[in-house]
Amino acid sequence: MKNYIKHDEWHIIEEGFDPHLNRISESLFSLGNGRMGQRANFEEEYSGDTHQGSYVAGVYYPDKTRVGWWKNGYPEYFAKVLNAPTWIGIHIKIGKLSLDLAKCKVKDFRRVLDMKHGLLHRSFIATFSDGKKVQVDAKRFCSMADGEVGAIRYSLIPINFSATVTFTLGIDADVVNKDSNYDEKFWERVSEESKKGMAIVTAQTKKTFFQVSTGMTYSITSGGKPAKGAVKSSMREKYADNTITLKLKKGEETVISKYGAILSSENHPKAKMNAIIRRKLQHTLTTGFDKLLADHSAVWSHTWQECDISIEGDIAAQQGIRFNIFQLMQTYTGKDERLNIGPKGFTGEKYGGSTYWDTEAYCLPFYLGTSNPKVARNLLVYRYKHLPRAIENAGKLGFTQGAALYPMVTMNGEECHNEWEITFEEIHRNGAIAFAIFDYIRYTGDEDYLVEHGLEVLIGIARFWAQRVNWSADKQKYVMLGVTGPNEYENNSNNNWYSNTFAAWTLGYAQQALEYVKKRNSSRYDKIVAKVKFDEVEETSKWKEIRNKMYFPEDKQRGIFLQQDGFLDKELLTVDKLRPEDRPLNQKWSWDRILRSCFIKQADVLQGIYFFEEQFDLPTIKRNFDFYEPMTVHESSLSPCVHVILASRLGYKEKAYEMYLRTSRLDLDDYNNDTEDGCHITSMAGTWMSVVKGFGGMRVSDGKLTFSPYIPDQWKAYSFRLEFRGRVIKVKISKAKTETLLEFGEPMEIIMNGRPVRLEKQGSAL
Amino acid sequence: MKNYIKHDEWHIIEEGFDPHLNRISESLFSLGNGRMGQRANFEEEYSGDTHQGSYVAGVYYPDKTRVGWWKNGYPEYFAKVLNAPTWIGIHIKIGKLSLDLAKCKVKDFRRVLDMKHGLLHRSFIATFSDGKKVQVDAKRFCSMADGEVGAIRYSLIPINFSATVTFTLGIDADVVNKDSNYDEKFWERVSEESKKGMAIVTAQTKKTFFQVSTGMTYSITSGGKPAKGAVKSSMREKYADNTITLKLKKGEETVISKYGAILSSENHPKAKMNAIIRRKLQHTLTTGFDKLLADHSAVWSHTWQECDISIEGDIAAQQGIRFNIFQLMQTYTGKDERLNIGPKGFTGEKYGGSTYWDTEAYCLPFYLGTSNPKVARNLLVYRYKHLPRAIENAGKLGFTQGAALYPMVTMNGEECHNEWEITFEEIHRNGAIAFAIFDYIRYTGDEDYLVEHGLEVLIGIARFWAQRVNWSADKQKYVMLGVTGPNEYENNSNNNWYSNTFAAWTLGYAQQALEYVKKRNSSRYDKIVAKVKFDEVEETSKWKEIRNKMYFPEDKQRGIFLQQDGFLDKELLTVDKLRPEDRPLNQKWSWDRILRSCFIKQADVLQGIYFFEEQFDLPTIKRNFDFYEPMTVHESSLSPCVHVILASRLGYKEKAYEMYLRTSRLDLDDYNNDTEDGCHITSMAGTWMSVVKGFGGMRVSDGKLTFSPYIPDQWKAYSFRLEFRGRVIKVKISKAKTETLLEFGEPMEIIMNGRPVRLEKQGSAL
Repeated sequence: MKNYIKHDEWHIIEEGFDPHLNRISESLFSLGNGRMGQRANFEEEYSGDTHQGSYVAGVYYPDKTRVGWWKNGYPEYFAKVLNAPTWIGIHIKIGKLSLDLAKCKVKDFRRVLDMKHGLLHRSFIATFSDGKKVQVDAKRFCSMADGEVGAIRYSLIPINFSATVTFTLGIDADVVNKDSNYDEKFWERVSEESKKGMAIVTAQTKKTFFQVSTGMTYSITSGGKPAKGAVKSSMREKYADNTITLKLKKGEETVISKYGAILSSENHPKAKMNAIIRRKLQHTLTTGFDKLLADHSAVWSHTWQECDISIEGDIAAQQGIRFNIFQLMQTYTGKDERLNIGPKGFTGEKYGGSTYWDTEAYCLPFYLGTSNPKVARNLLVYRYKHLPRAIENAGKLGFTQGAALYPMVTMNGEECHNEWEITFEEIHRNGAIAFAIFDYIRYTGDEDYLVEHGLEVLIGIARFWAQRVNWSADKQKYVMLGVTGPNEYENNSNNNWYSNTFAAWTLGYAQQALEYVKKRNSSRYDKIVAKVKFDEVEETSKWKEIRNKMYFPEDKQRGIFLQQDGFLDKELLTVDKLRPEDRPLNQKWSWDRILRSCFIKQADVLQGIYFFEEQFDLPTIKRNFDFYEPMTVHESSLSPCVHVILASRLGYKEKAYEMYLRTSRLDLDDYNNDTEDGCHITSMAGTWMSVVKGFGGMRVSDGKLTFSPYIPDQWKAYSFRLEFRGRVIKVKISKAKTETLLEFGEPMEIIMNGRPVRLEKQGSAL
Repeated sequence: MKNYIKHDEWHIIEEGFDPHLNRISESLFSLGNGRMGQRANFEEEYSGDTHQGSYVAGVYYPDKTRVGWWKNGYPEYFAKVLNAPTWIGIHIKIGKLSLDLAKCKVKDFRRVLDMKHGLLHRSFIATFSDGKKVQVDAKRFCSMADGEVGAIRYSLIPINFSATVTFTLGIDADVVNKDSNYDEKFWERVSEESKKGMAIVTAQTKKTFFQVSTGMTYSITSGGKPAKGAVKSSMREKYADNTITLKLKKGEETVISKYGAILSSENHPKAKMNAIIRRKLQHTLTTGFDKLLADHSAVWSHTWQECDISIEGDIAAQQGIRFNIFQLMQTYTGKDERLNIGPKGFTGEKYGGSTYWDTEAYCLPFYLGTSNPKVARNLLVYRYKHLPRAIENAGKLGFTQGAALYPMVTMNGEECHNEWEITFEEIHRNGAIAFAIFDYIRYTGDEDYLVEHGLEVLIGIARFWAQRVNWSADKQKYVMLGVTGPNEYENNSNNNWYSNTFAAWTLGYAQQALEYVKKRNSSRYDKIVAKVKFDEVEETSKWKEIRNKMYFPEDKQRGIFLQQDGFLDKELLTVDKLRPEDRPLNQKWSWDRILRSCFIKQADVLQGIYFFEEQFDLPTIKRNFDFYEPMTVHESSLSPCVHVILASRLGYKEKAYEMYLRTSRLDLDDYNNDTEDGCHITSMAGTWMSVVKGFGGMRVSDGKLTFSPYIPDQWKAYSFRLEFRGRVIKVKISKAKTETLLEFGEPMEIIMNGRPVRLEKQGSAL
């Protein structure tokens, strides 16, 4: 855990330059706009420790799988997000010396992420080894108004000298992935072009043949006037630049406005990309930095209006939640149904930037609550489009007749992961994908989604569960063997309560969906049945039989559900007995020790209770929470938010607040010692849920929003907004009262603390 | 399964050249002498499909581990046997054409492994593309009389032409391992030398700095007289040769006698190796092929006298058992306690050529029965010397206070394996290593081994088991969680009956060993106690407590032991219901499907019953065999022999014979479709056990050999010999009678079919 980020309501602030923290800051101060993004690498050269990262949404590479011991069913390739060509470089040389913060003395270093306006701002005074001092002020953004454009305003003032200075403004496509399995470079050259005032590099990925054109243009002023200097344009393979030589006067400010454009062949015909990027670059130059920034900030302003959460009286908590929302909104805008949300967004390479179950279980509720329903719907459609691949995937494992197993990790629907205990066993992901359909419809009321896409997905998943269980003659029940639940500190366990619960639920929900579609649109129903060769009588009776005879492990004496068979054979210890030097367990203990211990990465049973809360009475929830929470180490970023929500429900305010801080400041305070790899983007949605579903007690029941809010002792007030069925409502909770305002849309009824309340346009105080 | 090897009592015969079978034959016809060995690669060039392999015992390379997802506790390196410099090359060129069986028409091809004399013999007629025909006859051996020497006699006759022919006789150290994780070459040059009549290449392994000097010398005759021709010597990095140009006359035989020597810095000071190899090469040249072969064959003759098993009336069975004995004796001679038995011996790279539990569980009984007790003792000492490393290994996993976990795979005592379900969980290997001490003493009576080395090893292993179990409050028993048994088609199971049984047994045996050493040699006992900081009262009482309260899973209704908790939840099918196209499962099914099925790679429970047979009555053995055997797919080469032994005990003669054929001809008939990677050397010891312990019913009880022999219906008679406490006895079983002959040593009493029989020097018929 670290503590170097200054607390502020709207800004992430680093003061003073500590090279040891640089990788962490590069993650935290990342920028993105849904289409592209980048780590907060420096514009100038930097020979110190850095993790360079620039990413283009949807552009991936199928890297040859690396595995110790091959198992049948493993994928040949691990699709991973590519470190893409970068346009930010502004390399500065004075004589033989480069401006390089690893080699200069650095003073007054300040890096600020202005979340309100989506702007990265960095300033410092650097002293070269020969005593020359420069003052630098650099601003950068990736435009939310035009996802293919970014801009930098880079100001440099010679403090104590006049000299000739060269500025090299480059485009570099000769980049590598740190996580390349066999140290391979993934990009091949297509073309380079450099002329005065402009450079464009087009590169293509091996195997997948994505083309990306990256270009830059710029303007320079010195002392407020257009700067005049020699310009040399140069190129080499996968690289192009302009080098501008200027005579700078002591005390006079030189400002470089550099504009970048990135085009992907996913969005443009390859043949036309060159023409389009030229126009785009020309347009940015004409528009100028200030106007581009104003357009960009206007989008952020609108976004914050829709989804800000304000917290009064606790700046750390306020900063935490805004940081989470900011990063989520930078990562996924919901405009493109081919895209999804990688666990690290545009902040790092780890986990391959691919789609995980995080999307359905965590991100979906966030986008449902904060955005137009189309955004969430696009996330569902993404999986619908991958259904044929999910069926293939199940086929590779030996399942038949249209059973669908969605991949654990994917870019294009194919499974990428290659660790048997996860790839083959962490099948609960299938449950989350089915549940997302239910969750989406529960929130939006869009039952037609079942007709269009939902039913097919549900049939595929239900068929999988029906084949994945087997009849235990011993137990006289259906059992599910060889499973890894969300608690990845157990592997290959039998009768994981969470997975069994999801299987049974899906079989029931698929049945309901069938009945709904049949009644609502019988011709569509007939079409689907024919398409997927559905044997209604036989399959649904099998589903019913399994639901009725499913085995759910439990400890009757304690009145709890058992995480899996045999859990009570473990030595049942609690986390407070662990020595601090043993934490986090996944960095300190052998895998063997972790597996045998009772300690839980992320509590399966509680996660299941969170999803299916209405099935359980409060004493049951309490007994399970009291049993599992003390064993949970929360070494998954996805863990704490669920505990906030359940603890809130149970009135465990302190526990809820402790968990809230952990989730909301996970990256800012580097709780798990891994922020340098990138931020935990998907779990950030959990932070939002912590406030809205946890403290705010928001649920949807019978098509109505319900709330049972309370306020943590540490706060004075907090408020959040929700998009709900064409309305925007704002809920503000203070120590004294709860206010609910209908900011947009038709009057509606909500349930507040169990009582129906009608909201009229002007809002109503409770 | 294949069927191309001709049946013969003393020879392995391939007739006709089928390039698709070449890799298999290269494995089957491998040569070795305990110090070095080689696959049956051709002397001449071969551009077709081949797996080149030459190996030097004890010379390994720590290849950087390749793993998909790192787990704490994994080793950084995987030590693997090196493909070593080769001395066999005799490349032949006539004009521009090379003698290359992939490019010539091949007739009358015959490859014969003469097991009686340890000689590889190959002959063929090859027609070049220009119509020239040559007749070739090549003999080769690795000397059992001098482990650093090998020789080739290569005869060539031009059938239909006279021409100038060049012979290039090389030493090639520029070799690679096929299984190099990152395509790295493991050898670096030290020196090359080539002059008329001789070439030497010295190379050194990276990281481990083993030096190997490989040299060759030769003589050539044409038409029976010393051949006269130009000799050109040449060198390049890691390679040296002589090229001899001869004018050959139609019909005249040219004979090349090429002598190879391989020296390892494990056996000689690096500085002296050059001088020694020169002397050695000179000596081979002076001695000549015939005398070297005679000395070599004499050793084989002696070996066969000690350990041959003869079978009358079944040539396939006879060939099978001799092939197994031959390969074992080529692999390990027991002269060097630093060496051990790699699963593929000198026949391939797979499994890294490292030491596995196969040594203790399978090979030890073979060497006990066939060789001087020192050979088996050296195998035990090998593990004793690795004890400190086993303690370190356990420490890496979190065990303390001198607990020892022997590695799953090792060259030098360090763990090499990196698959958590095996590395961390397949801990039963520790049991086999403890049992080997018991087994050795039971057979040899050498109880002093406990005093010298055995006790320390047993304490380390007992401490491991005592920490590895935990108290289950639920079961009120000690349980063992997260284990993989010998049946690797289950992973991370709880309360594996086999492992629990071994743990309890070891705790008891360690206790007995303590008492024995204390009584026998109290000062040595005190020294050991001080050295390992043994707290006798506390530790032994803990051991006793665990033994008394150990949990053993069972099915009381069926009267069987359960492979592990939850086994009865599986769908209990039998192998005869599997479709042929699904076999072998490990090549046809996903890992997921294998894990969930009831099918058993190698039956844990039966393996445990085999080890601790005297603890169980016959009905118990029968119930367990009848339950588990039908689910066992025998996809481990180590599996069938145990079933021969138990089936024999139960009177299941047909099953025993079926399993015997499977084990004895596993490689010859390529049952598991993997002989091309090398032969299953360690499981070959199981074939020997099948005959001696299975059909012969040999056991040792109260210091006496006991027998309850029968003869398979398919055989007329069979016989085997046993070394036992200074005697050699021969047992011959025919349909009519069993004869037991004391061939060497003092009179002794044996138990035959329950009755004591006294053997006098001349043997006694029963």
